[in-house]
Amino acid sequence: MTVVRPSGRAPDQLREVRIERHFTRHAEGSVLVSFGHTRVLCTASVDNKAPPFLRGKGEGWVTAEYGMLPRSTHTRSDREAARGKQGGRTLEIQRLIGRALRACVDRSALGERTIVLDCDVLQADGGTRTAAITGAYVALVDAVRWLLARREISRDPVFGAVAAVSVGVYQGVPVLDLDYAEDSACDTDMNVVMNDGGGFIELQGTAEGHAFRRAELDSLLALAQKGIGDLLALQQAALARP
Amino acid sequence: MTVVRPSGRAPDQLREVRIERHFTRHAEGSVLVSFGHTRVLCTASVDNKAPPFLRGKGEGWVTAEYGMLPRSTHTRSDREAARGKQGGRTLEIQRLIGRALRACVDRSALGERTIVLDCDVLQADGGTRTAAITGAYVALVDAVRWLLARREISRDPVFGAVAAVSVGVYQGVPVLDLDYAEDSACDTDMNVVMNDGGGFIELQGTAEGHAFRRAELDSLLALAQKGIGDLLALQQAALARP
Amino acid sequence: MTVVRPSGRAPDQLREVRIERHFTRHAEGSVLVSFGHTRVLCTASVDNKAPPFLRGKGEGWVTAEYGMLPRSTHTRSDREAARGKQGGRTLEIQRLIGRALRACVDRSALGERTIVLDCDVLQADGGTRTAAITGAYVALVDAVRWLLARREISRDPVFGAVAAVSVGVYQGVPVLDLDYAEDSACDTDMNVVMNDGGGFIELQGTAEGHAFRRAELDSLLALAQKGIGDLLALQQAALARP
Amino acid sequence: MTVVRPSGRAPDQLREVRIERHFTRHAEGSVLVSFGHTRVLCTASVDNKAPPFLRGKGEGWVTAEYGMLPRSTHTRSDREAARGKQGGRTLEIQRLIGRALRACVDRSALGERTIVLDCDVLQADGGTRTAAITGAYVALVDAVRWLLARREISRDPVFGAVAAVSVGVYQGVPVLDLDYAEDSACDTDMNVVMNDGGGFIELQGTAEGHAFRRAELDSLLALAQKGIGDLLALQQAALARP
Amino acid sequence: MTVVRPSGRAPDQLREVRIERHFTRHAEGSVLVSFGHTRVLCTASVDNKAPPFLRGKGEGWVTAEYGMLPRSTHTRSDREAARGKQGGRTLEIQRLIGRALRACVDRSALGERTIVLDCDVLQADGGTRTAAITGAYVALVDAVRWLLARREISRDPVFGAVAAVSVGVYQGVPVLDLDYAEDSACDTDMNVVMNDGGGFIELQGTAEGHAFRRAELDSLLALAQKGIGDLLALQQAALARP
Amino acid sequence: MTVVRPSGRAPDQLREVRIERHFTRHAEGSVLVSFGHTRVLCTASVDNKAPPFLRGKGEGWVTAEYGMLPRSTHTRSDREAARGKQGGRTLEIQRLIGRALRACVDRSALGERTIVLDCDVLQADGGTRTAAITGAYVALVDAVRWLLARREISRDPVFGAVAAVSVGVYQGVPVLDLDYAEDSACDTDMNVVMNDGGGFIELQGTAEGHAFRRAELDSLLALAQKGIGDLLALQQAALARP
Repeated sequence: MTVVRPSGRAPDQLREVRIERHFTRHAEGSVLVSFGHTRVLCTASVDNKAPPFLRGKGEGWVTAEYGMLPRSTHTRSDREAARGKQGGRTLEIQRLIGRALRACVDRSALGERTIVLDCDVLQADGGTRTAAITGAYVALVDAVRWLLARREISRDPVFGAVAAVSVGVYQGVPVLDLDYAEDSACDTDMNVVMNDGGGFIELQGTAEGHAFRRAELDSLLALAQKGIGDLLALQQAALARP
Repeated sequence: MTVVRPSGRAPDQLREVRIERHFTRHAEGSVLVSFGHTRVLCTASVDNKAPPFLRGKGEGWVTAEYGMLPRSTHTRSDREAARGKQGGRTLEIQRLIGRALRACVDRSALGERTIVLDCDVLQADGGTRTAAITGAYVALVDAVRWLLARREISRDPVFGAVAAVSVGVYQGVPVLDLDYAEDSACDTDMNVVMNDGGGFIELQGTAEGHAFRRAELDSLLALAQKGIGDLLALQQAALARP
Repeated sequence: MTVVRPSGRAPDQLREVRIERHFTRHAEGSVLVSFGHTRVLCTASVDNKAPPFLRGKGEGWVTAEYGMLPRSTHTRSDREAARGKQGGRTLEIQRLIGRALRACVDRSALGERTIVLDCDVLQADGGTRTAAITGAYVALVDAVRWLLARREISRDPVFGAVAAVSVGVYQGVPVLDLDYAEDSACDTDMNVVMNDGGGFIELQGTAEGHAFRRAELDSLLALAQKGIGDLLALQQAALARP
Repeated sequence: MTVVRPSGRAPDQLREVRIERHFTRHAEGSVLVSFGHTRVLCTASVDNKAPPFLRGKGEGWVTAEYGMLPRSTHTRSDREAARGKQGGRTLEIQRLIGRALRACVDRSALGERTIVLDCDVLQADGGTRTAAITGAYVALVDAVRWLLARREISRDPVFGAVAAVSVGVYQGVPVLDLDYAEDSACDTDMNVVMNDGGGFIELQGTAEGHAFRRAELDSLLALAQKGIGDLLALQQAALARP
Repeated sequence: MTVVRPSGRAPDQLREVRIERHFTRHAEGSVLVSFGHTRVLCTASVDNKAPPFLRGKGEGWVTAEYGMLPRSTHTRSDREAARGKQGGRTLEIQRLIGRALRACVDRSALGERTIVLDCDVLQADGGTRTAAITGAYVALVDAVRWLLARREISRDPVFGAVAAVSVGVYQGVPVLDLDYAEDSACDTDMNVVMNDGGGFIELQGTAEGHAFRRAELDSLLALAQKGIGDLLALQQAALARP
Repeated sequence: MTVVRPSGRAPDQLREVRIERHFTRHAEGSVLVSFGHTRVLCTASVDNKAPPFLRGKGEGWVTAEYGMLPRSTHTRSDREAARGKQGGRTLEIQRLIGRALRACVDRSALGERTIVLDCDVLQADGGTRTAAITGAYVALVDAVRWLLARREISRDPVFGAVAAVSVGVYQGVPVLDLDYAEDSACDTDMNVVMNDGGGFIELQGTAEGHAFRRAELDSLLALAQKGIGDLLALQQAALARP
């Protein structure tokens, strides 16, 4: 079965992915990641104390916050700061980003420090959470390199790498890395986070139209695995640049 | 490989599940569901208007709210009403319950009505969200029967059935329906929502310790499928009682 | 003068009162109290520190929180956690419960501990605050027994007993323990909290229709005294069970 | 038994009460009421629409809001607007003021209007809620006179009069109109609202030290009745001035 | 060019200004300041600790809070405590008052103390922020005198004096100290804070209608300088009274 | 007198200013403005309805919201959405931006529409509010051009142009366009908004160290006038590009 994706991509083709380090100057890590038109600014900020629930335990923490600029979307959304609270979707996404990144950090090696990953969407076109995880990993590594360079820590607390991508069934065909046009017309949507050892860290699948079958699930997982392989390579290439 | 579960259950064995209908008298549907020591009161309330974003479209809506009584847990948690906001976990769970139940409702047949599913945890021992989905389905059916009996609607908007269970890898072995002792010691934890046609509605897997491999995922999905089959039968048995 | 109460009760007759201890398993005290169809889950949670304003004074504190499940009422009420604040009625009631129970506690004997009484209404049919006080007393005693059994305290801090009931003028006749049908049709409504020494702890009377006269007040107080005597006996009977 | 009150007053003696009408110029009614050093500014504001729950029913509403200036008290309290919410005590008091004043208003004669009574404490020395009720009555009458003078209503919706006073047991002796020194040292404290027909509108008694007996209650009620008689006369005298 | 001001004042004429010290009894400084019908109660409260960001630095702090009673205005405004937050205008004004008063305080001489200036508008008729600054200065001096009298500080931390006035272009003519009628009809509006050395502390000009030219600005500044001279003299006269 | 600015600039020299239009794709106007290292993303969003207070009056509205990304600053600031409210500084700045831009808009020609200007600081190095106003003007013009191109409006509602710059006294010397190093070491700081007719729209001067004299004020205004002239030219150049 064949389908024409709105973007003309092949079913297993990522959008153009760009990872731009040092996008802003104050943060210890600062990455502008683009998955096609989706652009997310990911900064990693080092705070030299652990959160209250870890004080005195010799361990650090990695946490994330997520936001969308009000007009990052097709129609303007309310500013969460003005509404006075973060919505359920925002909280859900930032909890996901935090869990995903903690999966590649040895918190003892980090020591009593917190690294906050702020992922702010400048422009949204589907897949903001997967772009955020993929970019935040690079910002995290830059922040850790900064700590190592200043000899604040002696051992690299980051082991392996983590990236994320969405997959879904669009017009009956499993496709990789949904953009907004596909996402809003899609029956099934899954976000997959994996590490560079081929292990799954998070799997979040939702049937919005009809429930999905085991066979569809298998195809989606294979697509995700392929896409994440590509993303892990792009992360390493970016980190190899000065 | 073999493991002794804290409860002494077999790896593919559910806890004792009870579904008690008509637990309270005001709600159109009211179910106390127990998965072992986990007890959740699920009520379905009919409101004769659609939410603002659906007004005038001839469609209804099903939504859910979730809460834990402060001392439903081992140590007392803050009351969310007193703290002035619902936490991220709460919002995440109630969004999940709503999506899961909407997956078996024909919203045109419901007409411009809202059914609110309130899932309040009286006692928590792991798996509150899967118990909530499983119980809320029964409360929803009771509310719909009430509408049909009063001839407010002419066609049953509920198609099929929906149930949920958790699965996880405990001490290296995939097990079904985690209780709190297992959940807190578990490497991987997955919540699965399925319908009675064997389709997946939601899949949320999280590796808390080590990332999980495809083979583990396959075992977990098989366990979930088995457990959900049992739960669907228990729902039907409960609904067959007067 | 004679009146037929909606429930068919005599003017000085309580509803059927049940006091079920150990209703849930985590709390140090857990009581499901029913005044007819009104059902309130009262838990007592021990926290091994005093509130900030008492730190270092060698005294403990007893406080209460109150909530209604959204569909405990005839029509669904908004969830206070979702609205982002507790309403005035809720705050008023939980302040009342706290004051009432502190009236039978020697806070020095309790030591630097806090006992939180959570009173959550599962089903409402009038008189939730008086049921809550009556049930919370039993939960409090159970929590104190738990502390004594573990030898965390050496002296029983609870002296005497406390119970509460509502009285009102319904169709011109003073009646005891109003249910919802009476409460909403009632001219005058009074909540009375007394101890087992016959002393008044709280008296809150409100004329919703016509102002009440001294003679009516006297009749209402006599009814309350009678009803509280019955409730104090029921509490002791419940506490005498294993 | 005899006691020396901190102020040197006789047990049944009110503080000096002053009722100053037209204290500010914008409000339809504006009264500065003083019970000794307690000074409360009570304004009555007419809004030409009923609250949402009464729209189209031909009836009006009277409601109250209460606040304390941060330094009306001995030590500065937090500003509720800065803290982001009104405390339980504030909500409890403003609900009481509203109920008390509605007890003398024929809401049909008022028509679809709302009168808001703002009671702001400029200086606190005990008894702010009873001073507020007593002063708000005068502001309410002034606002109603304003409506009558402009012929917006044809019939006076205020029937009778309402005033309030506190009573308590101070060093074993029942005394009238507690000031702060007495209030903070007092075993039992009761706020009484009555109308000019001798009927009780609200009765709120709290035993802070030992529980009070029927005989004490009777003495307190007699004192309150006496004090409210004096206050009703002072209200009429103030309203008789131009 | 000539203009008739609604109040009949000359263009460079202040309204009648009154500064009434010791208006309330609990605060260390308490001033009721009137600029015509604008009346603001300014209290200065001494707190014997510095704010968190200054702890241990040997310096104190002066801060301000501002509020309007709901019916201080022509039509009733919502109570900010009930709405659950202070509006932007309120925050802007209280930040201005704080900065203005800190400009005449040697914070080392104050020691680790905080003086909170609460400025609450009892009646508004334009110029509430300038009246607040002018009155708060007097309350501040009274609080400092109290500290000196009790020998809690040895050196007067207040140097010089600070006052404020508004100026604006009304019907083409620059005028001093706008009242509400002028303010709402005014093209340009400027608030000026100066000290007794003739220096500017704050300048906030806004063109609401047409943008203002340098020449207009010069006239406005001259008017403000004249008015502030008068206000500084009135402050000193008030402070010279016992 | 001569001074070496941290950046090496001449006293009357702006930082390098860049105005990049069409920075994001969804907004009707989208401008990334840079004043040196200060970078603010300004989007203009058209909403086809007027705010409630203008409904039915045939007029439109222009309003602004302002935010800083948490790590736009040297050390990370709390996310306002997570804290649950916008701070006083934020509200003050967004009110200023809104007033400034409304000064060049004929709201009748705009019709019943709202244009929201979102100014989000990606990187802060002093002068974010002046950069925001200068950039928002360009975004506003782009949004209006979009409306004109689609013939939704027939007449250009923007008259003239508006730009803003800061000036201050740094080490005794008046300088233009303060960066963060200067701003934090500066005695006096003034933000000036002017139009292309040479008129003042806003003037906000604050003496943080010593009060400033008339002569200093005159120098600062001259500097601002010069700088704004440069900025207005840069805006026109940017708008002349396709």
